[in-house]
Amino acid sequence: MDTTSLTITGALEAFAKREIAPQNLTEACFAQIKRLNPTLNAYITVIEPKKTLEAQRPPINTAPLNHALRGIPIAVKDLFDVEGIRTTAGSKFFADHIAENDAFVVERLKQAGALINGKTNTHEIALGVTGENPHYGTARNPWDTERIAGGSSSGSAIAVATGMALGALGTDTGGSIRIPASLCGVVGFKPTRGRVSTRGVFPLSWNLDHVGPLTKCVKDAAVMLQVISVYDAVDPSSIKMLTGDYLGHLIDDMSGRKIAIASGEFIESADTEVLEALHDAAKIFESMGCKIQKINVDWLNDAALANSTMIQTDAAAVHRDRLKEHPEMFGDDIRLRLEEGTNRSATEYVLARRTQADARKRFELFFESYDFLILPTTPIAAPPVTGLDSIEQAGRLNLFTKPFNLTGLPALSVPCGFTSEGLPIGLQIVAKAWGDAKALNAGYAYEQATEWHKKFPMI
Amino acid sequence: MDTTSLTITGALEAFAKREIAPQNLTEACFAQIKRLNPTLNAYITVIEPKKTLEAQRPPINTAPLNHALRGIPIAVKDLFDVEGIRTTAGSKFFADHIAENDAFVVERLKQAGALINGKTNTHEIALGVTGENPHYGTARNPWDTERIAGGSSSGSAIAVATGMALGALGTDTGGSIRIPASLCGVVGFKPTRGRVSTRGVFPLSWNLDHVGPLTKCVKDAAVMLQVISVYDAVDPSSIKMLTGDYLGHLIDDMSGRKIAIASGEFIESADTEVLEALHDAAKIFESMGCKIQKINVDWLNDAALANSTMIQTDAAAVHRDRLKEHPEMFGDDIRLRLEEGTNRSATEYVLARRTQADARKRFELFFESYDFLILPTTPIAAPPVTGLDSIEQAGRLNLFTKPFNLTGLPALSVPCGFTSEGLPIGLQIVAKAWGDAKALNAGYAYEQATEWHKKFPMI
Repeated sequence: MDTTSLTITGALEAFAKREIAPQNLTEACFAQIKRLNPTLNAYITVIEPKKTLEAQRPPINTAPLNHALRGIPIAVKDLFDVEGIRTTAGSKFFADHIAENDAFVVERLKQAGALINGKTNTHEIALGVTGENPHYGTARNPWDTERIAGGSSSGSAIAVATGMALGALGTDTGGSIRIPASLCGVVGFKPTRGRVSTRGVFPLSWNLDHVGPLTKCVKDAAVMLQVISVYDAVDPSSIKMLTGDYLGHLIDDMSGRKIAIASGEFIESADTEVLEALHDAAKIFESMGCKIQKINVDWLNDAALANSTMIQTDAAAVHRDRLKEHPEMFGDDIRLRLEEGTNRSATEYVLARRTQADARKRFELFFESYDFLILPTTPIAAPPVTGLDSIEQAGRLNLFTKPFNLTGLPALSVPCGFTSEGLPIGLQIVAKAWGDAKALNAGYAYEQATEWHKKFPMI
Repeated sequence: MDTTSLTITGALEAFAKREIAPQNLTEACFAQIKRLNPTLNAYITVIEPKKTLEAQRPPINTAPLNHALRGIPIAVKDLFDVEGIRTTAGSKFFADHIAENDAFVVERLKQAGALINGKTNTHEIALGVTGENPHYGTARNPWDTERIAGGSSSGSAIAVATGMALGALGTDTGGSIRIPASLCGVVGFKPTRGRVSTRGVFPLSWNLDHVGPLTKCVKDAAVMLQVISVYDAVDPSSIKMLTGDYLGHLIDDMSGRKIAIASGEFIESADTEVLEALHDAAKIFESMGCKIQKINVDWLNDAALANSTMIQTDAAAVHRDRLKEHPEMFGDDIRLRLEEGTNRSATEYVLARRTQADARKRFELFFESYDFLILPTTPIAAPPVTGLDSIEQAGRLNLFTKPFNLTGLPALSVPCGFTSEGLPIGLQIVAKAWGDAKALNAGYAYEQATEWHKKFPMI
């Protein structure tokens, strides 16, 4: 059985039909890792099938959530603590740091029966979106290994795209789930801030970090979100809200939905092929009975800038002691960004926070008129690794994703086409705060009408 | 008819019985202002009875809210815009700044039939809690004019305590409603952050400012809150929540309520007489059938510090251009605080924000076990005006109030006794987020069992 294109829900069906056993699937994923990881650098730490299978928890009872991922190989970004495994955060500082406990969401995955098969590569300390890591190797795009995979959850996107794992966890502070998902042609979802616990996840920003899934299709993302979106009473970022019925909301009917398609100078800075794919997607939604309206979103530029100010400053606060005592242990790009963060004035930060409050309110009103905002996930497809000025590329790559970290809104990236060079393009679907089920539904309906999510890199 | 001890609800009854007409009440308040303002400096701008009465809006319809304050003289702190009247913010910069529109809450007061009779004195730009203002005169305590009234909503507390107005609006960023309420022996309520719009109110901090009422009794505070707690869709600080039925929740029955009484080093820094009054209040609650438990709250010290860091930095951001171009126009204490704010590092701010998130979560858990936290509003009664080191006093005065700005929790100050020198002492009652009606209920029940709120300064 070819497992590289297998989805989570597909695998669960195959288990039920005894077409494959979890052990074989785990071994098939491991074979892919062994074959491709030397080229793609998707994993920083690989967990051998034997150890992966041994770590599986028996189901507590027969509740569906305890079986939602039973036997499914899942990769987690190397910011998430997994008991007994090192968490490097892509940094030299933590090369030998063994986690004593599972992160809250890793614990949830294990309770649901998932098999954690390794820790995936990340831009160093998650502060960058190219996935070039001087300590653990540059993550490479499976569609073209001379191109970046995007980041910072680079390895998670690669693992899903190539069948090294069936699903993965990522984190997203300025686009770090959605960007690699877009560049590698998989689904990436950043849920509403507060929906998923960040406890036991190495922080980049205490106020902008989001945890979410990367998967082959929207349905799989819904399954993973169902498992991980449990309120965590002791996590300062968790907010007590009813958990949605994400799977139950995956319906085809989108008729009458009002969709704003982003327009204006800000969006039109994107490459032509990316914009064409966006407009094609709008037509698909229109054919489903949605009402499409062009909306100028140039004001998002300020929100993107404010998010950058906050990430830099927040990261500088997180790493203040390390930066002071051992600046040489950071990669050049990271050290520069952290130093810039340290030198930002508190007034700049306060003004960014003001922009944050304004942007949240603005979207609150916006989503009284529209069900969704659609825009490209990234303004460009994957750029080449060589000759890449990582800081400059980052500035373009996360331009369209950052506003939704600042505002904490749910934002989904789904594959929506390919460039003439055969590189994946991502469509970003944004909904109102706590409208996670709604965003997933739109993505699911789009998938039902298209075939993009069924294409995988030939590698 | 002696109007100086008249409450809002008392006046509404007197109107109904035709014992007094709104015009006479307005004139009686004006007479008090004329008699006492030269000594107490409660008002920066007094509105003459004729103009006050002319500005009254006719009721839109017969809905109770359109009559809740009909004919009631209300004073507003000189940070709130009132159409056609100057808003000085207690600053030299705005000595001639005439407001073009009503602040959102002033508009609400007017729609409810209130008669705005003037703009009350404030610590300059609201950045201080003593009420000493070098530009508009030092606000003096009506219980002892050689003592401060507390601040920054100094004039609002004095006006209510002396019958210059029947109720007043204040703002509270570190204790600025509750401190003068405590020091002047009136009720002051800081509602949950997000409950009341701050639009049209001169900002001190975009993230910690709260608007609330100062009144003679808790019932009056409930009436005023009912009028002003309307969701404001375009105010970034407003949060869409159901408005409570504040009056409907004012019941006597407190049996079975769990009350945590603050203890530990942090609280015991208060003066002995203040702590005695706190323990006496606890006994009153116990006699009502409440369960009282001592809880160490030493961790609030960090929350208080974080709130100070934020206020200073936020205020420095608000006033950045003025501080750069005309530092000499600020009073000495204010200039110093703003300069300190400007020099704070962004990292300090980020760490304060981290403390904010932690403190909110900690209280979320705390209020799953307790209905209320009670503690003194201020650790000392009103200190003397002369020889006062305003910065040092401020550090003590707002120690117990600041944590509830940082966390945005509803906090009520009610009179709970007098020192041996005859100065009022305040009891602070804190409830969970959005538990405004609950906090008011506890204060109301306490008032029913005591007489402190019926004592007024003989001046």
